[in-house]
Amino acid sequence: MQAPLHFYFDFSSPYGYFAAMHIEALAGKYQRKVEWHPVLLGAIFKITECQPLIQIPLKGKYSAHDLVRTARFHHIPFAMPAIFPLATHLAARAVLWLINTQGQDSAGKFVKAVYQAYFVDGVNIGDALQLAQIATNCGFDAAALTQATATPEIKEQLKLQVDSAIEHGVFGSPFMIVDEEPFWGFDRFDQLEAHLKNGKI
Amino acid sequence: MQAPLHFYFDFSSPYGYFAAMHIEALAGKYQRKVEWHPVLLGAIFKITECQPLIQIPLKGKYSAHDLVRTARFHHIPFAMPAIFPLATHLAARAVLWLINTQGQDSAGKFVKAVYQAYFVDGVNIGDALQLAQIATNCGFDAAALTQATATPEIKEQLKLQVDSAIEHGVFGSPFMIVDEEPFWGFDRFDQLEAHLKNGKI
Repeated sequence: MQAPLHFYFDFSSPYGYFAAMHIEALAGKYQRKVEWHPVLLGAIFKITECQPLIQIPLKGKYSAHDLVRTARFHHIPFAMPAIFPLATHLAARAVLWLINTQGQDSAGKFVKAVYQAYFVDGVNIGDALQLAQIATNCGFDAAALTQATATPEIKEQLKLQVDSAIEHGVFGSPFMIVDEEPFWGFDRFDQLEAHLKNGKI
Repeated sequence: MQAPLHFYFDFSSPYGYFAAMHIEALAGKYQRKVEWHPVLLGAIFKITECQPLIQIPLKGKYSAHDLVRTARFHHIPFAMPAIFPLATHLAARAVLWLINTQGQDSAGKFVKAVYQAYFVDGVNIGDALQLAQIATNCGFDAAALTQATATPEIKEQLKLQVDSAIEHGVFGSPFMIVDEEPFWGFDRFDQLEAHLKNGKI
């Protein structure tokens, strides 16, 4: 097996959602496993001095339009949630706990379920009870997951995870790194695939 | 002939350069003419409170890498200029003068020549003498062009042009509007082509 594909994302990122729904198929086509890296864009934006896309004058209005169009173009179900953006640290910690206890594939299953709950069904994924329900639906131990997301250990793990992402140059979502080659954005999947296919671009 | 494709760009935008080299072929394939709209990102960034890409922490380093890779991926000659970014108001005014006096096709010829001079040959396109040389190489009256770019009328025209672009929601380069549908970025050429082909996405 070749080196894994590192997938960095924030649950409040619609383009992260689009990418998350396709990344395993793309990676698997070239014998790569996905490693999931939940991050917090709020912490990263303090470094880059950027604002959430949707809040930027002119760009925000375009982005709202582009998101709907991009979803349609790629045939991905999508409905802009009423609460947007929202706090994603609980969901991110839940992903880390799943990685710790059950591995990357289980984490991936949960990532996709949380993203779909938020960007298709409009569920408030910032809420611990809603996250527990999603975990139950996925067949995970919701009580253990909820408990884990409140521990100092997992909080510290997420902080280190975000620091590590920044050290690796991650500044947005989705952000993919494979063989130390960085790709930012769902619209770099063409170049990412060229790299996976040919080992270079 | 159907409605034209409006192409907004700043000469200091490398992705604008990539797009400018391909936009006429794409538009022409679907019986559209290109209308060139030089803008000044500096003025636009005052509205969006954004910085030039290359100056943003983390994002700047990635962008420098992505530009070279994107050029290679699309087989476009590219060398990052030593002076970057630079003032593009003279070149923008020259384009407006060409549109006024000789039409969109001549303007397009000049746009591509200026972009290539900057992003392939490293010419300082902020310099009036260098712009005159490019105009001469294109077969245009360089003396008339140089004189025109210093008049109050053309300065005012560029200011109105930038204001109009902002009113149309333009916040970056390249930015394309066709049939009132906006597309930002060279990486939206796939969706732009889908629109041109099918009238919708």
